[in-house]
Amino acid sequence: MIRLTKCAVSVLLATGFGLGATSAFSADTLQDVMKARGLSQQDLMAAAKTYVPTGKRDDFMVFSSGGQSGQVIVYGIPSMRILKYIGVFTPEPWQGYGFDEQSKKVLAGGRIDGKDITWGDTHHPALSETNGESDGQFLFINDKANPRIAVIDLQDFETKQIVVNPIYKSEHGGTFVTPNTEYIFEAAQYPAPLENKKFYPLEEFNEKYRGGMTYWKFDRKKGLVDTAASFSIELPPYSQDLSDAGKGPSDGWSFTNSFCAERYVGGIEKGRPPYEAGCSAKDTDYLHVINWRKAAELVKAGKAKKINGHDVLSMETAIKEGILFLVPEPKSPHGADVTPDGKMIIVAGKLDTHVSVFSFEKIQAAIKAGKFEGKDPYGIPVIAMKDALHTQVSLGLGPLHTQYDSKPCVAYTSLYVDSQVAKWNYCEGKVLDKISVHYNIGHLMTMEGDTTKPKGHYLVALNKLAIDRFNPVGPLHPQNHQLIDISGDKMELLYDMPIPLGEPHYAVAIDAKKLKPAVRYKVGTNSRTDQPDPGAVKAGQEKIVRKGNKVEVFGTLIRSHITPETIEVNVGDEVTINLTNLERAEDETHGFAVSTYNVHASVEPGKTVTVKFKADKEGVYPYYCTEFCSALHLEMEGYLLVKPKGWKPGKTTALAAGHYTEVEYKATVKKVADTQAIIDSVVAYITSVNYKDFPEVVAMVDDAFDQLGKTKGLKEKHEGFAAKKDWENANLWAEQIWQYQVKTADLGLRAKTFLEQHGAKKIK
Amino acid sequence: MIRLTKCAVSVLLATGFGLGATSAFSADTLQDVMKARGLSQQDLMAAAKTYVPTGKRDDFMVFSSGGQSGQVIVYGIPSMRILKYIGVFTPEPWQGYGFDEQSKKVLAGGRIDGKDITWGDTHHPALSETNGESDGQFLFINDKANPRIAVIDLQDFETKQIVVNPIYKSEHGGTFVTPNTEYIFEAAQYPAPLENKKFYPLEEFNEKYRGGMTYWKFDRKKGLVDTAASFSIELPPYSQDLSDAGKGPSDGWSFTNSFCAERYVGGIEKGRPPYEAGCSAKDTDYLHVINWRKAAELVKAGKAKKINGHDVLSMETAIKEGILFLVPEPKSPHGADVTPDGKMIIVAGKLDTHVSVFSFEKIQAAIKAGKFEGKDPYGIPVIAMKDALHTQVSLGLGPLHTQYDSKPCVAYTSLYVDSQVAKWNYCEGKVLDKISVHYNIGHLMTMEGDTTKPKGHYLVALNKLAIDRFNPVGPLHPQNHQLIDISGDKMELLYDMPIPLGEPHYAVAIDAKKLKPAVRYKVGTNSRTDQPDPGAVKAGQEKIVRKGNKVEVFGTLIRSHITPETIEVNVGDEVTINLTNLERAEDETHGFAVSTYNVHASVEPGKTVTVKFKADKEGVYPYYCTEFCSALHLEMEGYLLVKPKGWKPGKTTALAAGHYTEVEYKATVKKVADTQAIIDSVVAYITSVNYKDFPEVVAMVDDAFDQLGKTKGLKEKHEGFAAKKDWENANLWAEQIWQYQVKTADLGLRAKTFLEQHGAKKIK
Repeated sequence: MIRLTKCAVSVLLATGFGLGATSAFSADTLQDVMKARGLSQQDLMAAAKTYVPTGKRDDFMVFSSGGQSGQVIVYGIPSMRILKYIGVFTPEPWQGYGFDEQSKKVLAGGRIDGKDITWGDTHHPALSETNGESDGQFLFINDKANPRIAVIDLQDFETKQIVVNPIYKSEHGGTFVTPNTEYIFEAAQYPAPLENKKFYPLEEFNEKYRGGMTYWKFDRKKGLVDTAASFSIELPPYSQDLSDAGKGPSDGWSFTNSFCAERYVGGIEKGRPPYEAGCSAKDTDYLHVINWRKAAELVKAGKAKKINGHDVLSMETAIKEGILFLVPEPKSPHGADVTPDGKMIIVAGKLDTHVSVFSFEKIQAAIKAGKFEGKDPYGIPVIAMKDALHTQVSLGLGPLHTQYDSKPCVAYTSLYVDSQVAKWNYCEGKVLDKISVHYNIGHLMTMEGDTTKPKGHYLVALNKLAIDRFNPVGPLHPQNHQLIDISGDKMELLYDMPIPLGEPHYAVAIDAKKLKPAVRYKVGTNSRTDQPDPGAVKAGQEKIVRKGNKVEVFGTLIRSHITPETIEVNVGDEVTINLTNLERAEDETHGFAVSTYNVHASVEPGKTVTVKFKADKEGVYPYYCTEFCSALHLEMEGYLLVKPKGWKPGKTTALAAGHYTEVEYKATVKKVADTQAIIDSVVAYITSVNYKDFPEVVAMVDDAFDQLGKTKGLKEKHEGFAAKKDWENANLWAEQIWQYQVKTADLGLRAKTFLEQHGAKKIK
Repeated sequence: MIRLTKCAVSVLLATGFGLGATSAFSADTLQDVMKARGLSQQDLMAAAKTYVPTGKRDDFMVFSSGGQSGQVIVYGIPSMRILKYIGVFTPEPWQGYGFDEQSKKVLAGGRIDGKDITWGDTHHPALSETNGESDGQFLFINDKANPRIAVIDLQDFETKQIVVNPIYKSEHGGTFVTPNTEYIFEAAQYPAPLENKKFYPLEEFNEKYRGGMTYWKFDRKKGLVDTAASFSIELPPYSQDLSDAGKGPSDGWSFTNSFCAERYVGGIEKGRPPYEAGCSAKDTDYLHVINWRKAAELVKAGKAKKINGHDVLSMETAIKEGILFLVPEPKSPHGADVTPDGKMIIVAGKLDTHVSVFSFEKIQAAIKAGKFEGKDPYGIPVIAMKDALHTQVSLGLGPLHTQYDSKPCVAYTSLYVDSQVAKWNYCEGKVLDKISVHYNIGHLMTMEGDTTKPKGHYLVALNKLAIDRFNPVGPLHPQNHQLIDISGDKMELLYDMPIPLGEPHYAVAIDAKKLKPAVRYKVGTNSRTDQPDPGAVKAGQEKIVRKGNKVEVFGTLIRSHITPETIEVNVGDEVTINLTNLERAEDETHGFAVSTYNVHASVEPGKTVTVKFKADKEGVYPYYCTEFCSALHLEMEGYLLVKPKGWKPGKTTALAAGHYTEVEYKATVKKVADTQAIIDSVVAYITSVNYKDFPEVVAMVDDAFDQLGKTKGLKEKHEGFAAKKDWENANLWAEQIWQYQVKTADLGLRAKTFLEQHGAKKIK
C-alpha cells in the first residue's frame, strides 16, 4: 500500500485538506480521518466519486423493481440515495395509495376474477422511448405473480393504470417497449391453459398448456394502455422468459427467450426428479423471434381469435403467416438483449459459460431463404443455431444478463455463480475485464443501457444476496446494489447500497436532466386521472351535504387548519370526505386521518382526494393532519362526532368560553405588531438582493405573501369584537393573524437562509 | 476558497492519491474528480467521514419512525444507508407481513372495535434500557392515529406484538421507557371520552372529554407487554404530548407536556377561530409531573377503577394520593427531555423562543413544601414556573426537541421556524453554536441521546421538508435527515439523506456493537412467537392431509425446489399451506406465491410460515419461489390444480416422456464428473488457507457440504435406472446431482472470493 509521505501530509495541511484550526474538523486532518476510519486511498477516491454535497443533485435517476414489495424504488446515481418508493401493486398509506378513492380505482383496475390483489411481484421496469431513446415521460412495470402491468406517469411519479393480462396465470418477460413506445411487451412464464379458470390435468401439459407474448398498445396522449387495441400471440409451453424489442434494422421484431423447453413436469413428492432437474436437462432452449409489426397488422385484418375477450393470434396463424420462428439458445437463459445498433441479440444461457451473440441479419437471411433445421413439436420453424450466431464467448459461470456501454461493441454481462461482472467486446468476441461483486448478481444495468444511446459512466450490479456486507438486521437481509465506475479501462467498485425493502430484479436509469416532474397540481385535481375532481372546492366554499344517511363533506386543507373542524353524523351514516389541499408551495403536503376508522389520505399541493367509510360506531373520533406541515401542525385537528340513534342535545348548550381579558387582547395585538416588524426586516433583506434570480426563493416569497394575504379582513374582525368588548373573539382572531404571520416568517426565514447560502448579491 | 497548489497536486499524484496509470481511475486524480464534481475540500472531508467501504460496517444503527407508513426505518451512521423497513402496523408483502397466518395474528392484536386497521402513524420509537442504558434487545413504537403500541424483537427485527390502548382515541406521547424497561409510556393526545364508543357533544368538552397517561408493563422474559398488569392515569383534556421517564434521582417519575391547555374547541366552518388560534392563545401550557412508581402501587392496592376493562386511576385519586402535579411551561411545547443525570427536564415551547430547564430537585422541594401557586380547574396542584425553573435560554424561533451530548451539560435543540440546530449549555444557560438545516427540523437525535450515557459524535436533524434538496420526484417529496458531526466545538454538516418512504417523526440510535441479531431460526420456528410451529416438517416428511373440504399441506423449501410440486384440490376447498425453509445458510430466504390467489410468504432460513386461502376458482395456478435464491430459482415452481366439481380423469393418462437417450445420460454423467473436479479444486484452495479463521467462510463451507450431501443416494438411483435402460429417469437424476453441484460450486466460489479478498494465508 502506498503511504502518505511526511511531505504530502504537510502539504495537505498547508493547502487546506486539513482545514485548519478554525474549522469544525479542528482536530482532524484528512489523513487522521482516513486512518481512524480505515480508509484506503482508493476508498477516498470512491467517496469523492459518489458523495453528493447538500443541495447538489444526482446525475442519473434509477427506477428499480421492488420485487415482492409490489413497488418501484427510485434512487440517484452516483450517491445511491433512495429518493422514493412508488406504490404500484401494493397499498401504501404514507402516499395514501389504496386508501383514497382515487387511487383505489387504479388498484381496482388490477383486480383479478373480481377480487382485490394486495401485492405484486414487480420484475422489469421500462422507460418510455422516443426514437429508441429514453424520453423521461412514463415508466412501465410488470407483476409476475398476478400477470399485470402498470403505467406510472413521471410527471408526478404516480401509478395511473393497472392492466390485467387476460390469458396468463403468470408472466415474467415484461415490461419492454418498442423504440417509440407503440407497444409494451409482456411474455408469459409458467405455462397454463389460456382460457380463464379452465382446468386441464398436468398429463395434458403439452396439448393444453400454453405460453404467449402480449403486445399492449400504449396511447401516449392519454398516458394509458389501450386494451382494446392490444393483442397476444399463442406460444408453446416453453416457459417464456425475458424479451427485448428490436431497434434500427431489427425494429418491428421482438425476441423472447425461454427455459424448460423440455416441457418437463415435476412432482418430487411422487418420486419424480424436481423441475430444477428436468427443466435443465437439455443443452438448449428456444429464442422466440416474432415479427410484431406484421402481427399487429394481422390482428387488424381480423386474423385473431378471442380468448377471454382478448385478441390472440394462434400459433397456427403465426406459423402460416410467417411471423414466428425459433432459434436454439444455450440452456436456461435469462436475458435476451438487443445491441444499441439493433444488429445483434445477446443471450446468456445461465447453465452454460457462454454468451451467444445472434445476428439479426443472419436470422433474416435464414428466414428469407427458408433455411430451417426443422420444426418444433408445434410446427414452428427452427433456425439452426449456427445459422443465426455471430459469435459465442465464454465468460464464466452463470452468465445472466447483458447491458451496453456508450463505447461501441462494449457489453457487460452478469455472472451469477461467479459473482462477477464481465466486460467484453461483442464484435470481436473477447473478454476485456472482470470485477467481483458481493454476492450473486442477477441483472445489471448501465445508464440508459437498454436504449439506442447508452450513456456509459456507471454500471449497477443488482446482487441477490448481501450476506455479510452490511450491519446485520435479522434473518431477512437487504440486497446489495453495487455502483461500478465503467468510465476507465478497468471497472472499479464505488459503492455498496443496501435495499431496505423489496427484492429488486431489474432497474433502468435515465439522465436526471430528462426528468421534469411537477411540484404541485392545479388546485382541485384528481391526480390519478389528471382531471378536475368533482369533490374539489375553493377556499370559503367548504360545505357538508346530507342526503338521507349519506353525508358528503367538501373540505379544504391549508397550514394549519382543516375546514370543517367538526363533522357531525349519525351512527350508520355513509360518510364521504373530499379534501382539497389549497397550498401552492412546494412540498407542503397535508395528510388526513380519522382516529380508529382506518382512514388515511396524503394530499399534495393542489390535489383533491376522497375518503369513504361507514360511521358504524358511535362516539367521538378526532381527525388530524398526519404531515408535520407547520409549527402548529398538531393543532391541525377536528372532531368526527358520531351521534347515537335518536340522540338529542339535552339543553341549549354552548361551548365553554375562553375568558380572555382586554389585557390579553392588547398583548396579542402587540405581538402581531412585533412579528410584523420581523417580517418587514426579512422582506427588506430579500428585496435588497437579487432574489428574483432564484426560482426556489421566488416560490417561497409567493407562498409567504399568500399566507400573509390570508390575514385580510381579520384586523377589522378582531377590532369589531374588541369594540363590542367580546375579548375572547377579539383575542382569538388577533391570534389567528399571528398564526399566519408565523407561517410567513417561517417561509421568509427559509428564503433568507437560502439566499445567504447561495451567494445572493446586493442590488441597488 | 483554499486552492490546491501545484506542489500539492504533484505530491498527491506521487503518493498515490492520483492512483497512477495502472488503476481504474487512470484518467483521474483526486483533484480532477473534485473539480469535475464541484466538490470543495470540506465536501471531501465530509465524504471521507461518511463513506463506508464495501464489507465495512456502520458504527451506529438508527431506528426511525416511518410516520404514516406505519413502519420502522433502520439505517446506519455514518453512511446513512437504509438497511431495512420493518413492517409494524401496515401489511408489507416483501417480508410477508400480514400475508402469512403467523404475522396476521400479530396484526390481529391491533384490531380496533373488531376491525382490521391496515396502517398506522408511527411517531416515537424507544429502545429497551437496562440501568438507563440502551441494551439492544427490544424496540417499541406507537401509532398516533389508532392508539396502539408495538413490540419489535431485535433478535430478528420482527414485530411480535401490537397492543391497543383501551381508553384513548388518539395518542402521541409514546413510546418512552423507564430505566429498566419496567414500563412503556403512552400519553393521549386529542381529548375524547375515555369510555369506548361513548358520545358526548363538544359542549361537554371540559366535563366529559379527557386525556391520560398509560403505563404499559413490559415482561422482558416473554418479550411482551403484560396488558393485565398495565394501567393509566386520567388527565385533564389538555392534549398531552411528549413524555420522558425520570432517571437517577428522578427515577420513578414521568414528565408529560401538553398543548391546548386552553381546552379550546374550534369550528372554523361556523365562524369560530380555528384550533390553531385558540389552542395557542395563552402564554403557557402544562407539564404533567407524575409519580408512576407510586401510581403502580396504588393500582396494585386496588385504587384504580376499570374503564373498558382497563385499570385507570382517576384524577381525584391521583390528586388525593399526591402523585400528580402541574407546572406551567411556555406555550405549545413539543419535547420534555430529562437530562442524562436525571436532574433536569428540558422543555421547549415552540411558540416561545426559550427553552426552559426545570429542576427536578426544585419541583420535589415545592411538592414537599406544599408550595403551589394554585390548582387547575380539576383540582390538580400547580407549581409556579419560577419555583421549578433552573434557567431559561433564548435559542431562536420554534424550539422543539432537545437531545444530549456525551459532554456534560451540552444539549442540542431543534428550531423549527429558524430551520436550525442550537448547541447550548443547560447548566450555565448559554448558547454555544448554531447550524442551519434544510428545512424545518422537527425532532433531532444524538447517539443514545435518550439514555443516561449519550455517546456523542453524531447528531441527526430530522427535517420535515426537503423542498429543493434532492432530485425532484413529483409533488410528494422525501424528507431530509441530515447527519451532523458534533465531535468538534462547532457543528458541521456531513450528509443529506432523503427518506424515500414514510414521514419520520423521531428516531433513536444505538451503538451497532450492542445489536446481535440472529441470521437464522431453529428449523421449524414460528418467528412471531419464537416457538416451534405445528406446521413444520423435516425434509422427507412432507405431506398433504385432506379432511373433508380442508386440505393442509406440510411442505418444505430448499434450493431450488418446493416440496410438493403439485397440489391438487377441488374447487371450494379450504387450503392451508405450511412451508418450512430447510436452509441453514445466511441470507437464503425463499418466497412463495400462488398465482392470482393473493398469496405470498417470505420464508427466512429455518422459518415456518402458513398461508390460507379458499380455492374458489377452478383452473391451473402456478406457484413459485419469489426470491432469486439460486441459479435455478425460476425452476423453483409447482402447480396448484383446482379441479371442477365432479371432475374425473377421462382415461389413464401419464405425463409426457422426455425421450432422453443413453448418449444424453452419459453426457450428463460426464458433466457431473467435470463439475466435481471444479468443486475439488475449490475445496483444495479453501483447505490450503486458514479459512477456519473466517466464520463467514466456515458457514459457507458448511452450507456447501450440506448441498453436496443432498446428492447422497442419487448416484445409485440414476445408475439403477440406467441399468434398466430408463434413460429419462437415469438422465434426470444424474442432472439433479449436477443441480446440487452447481449450488455447491456457487458457495465454494463465493467462499474462495471472500478468502482472496480478505487476505487469507496459506497453511501447511
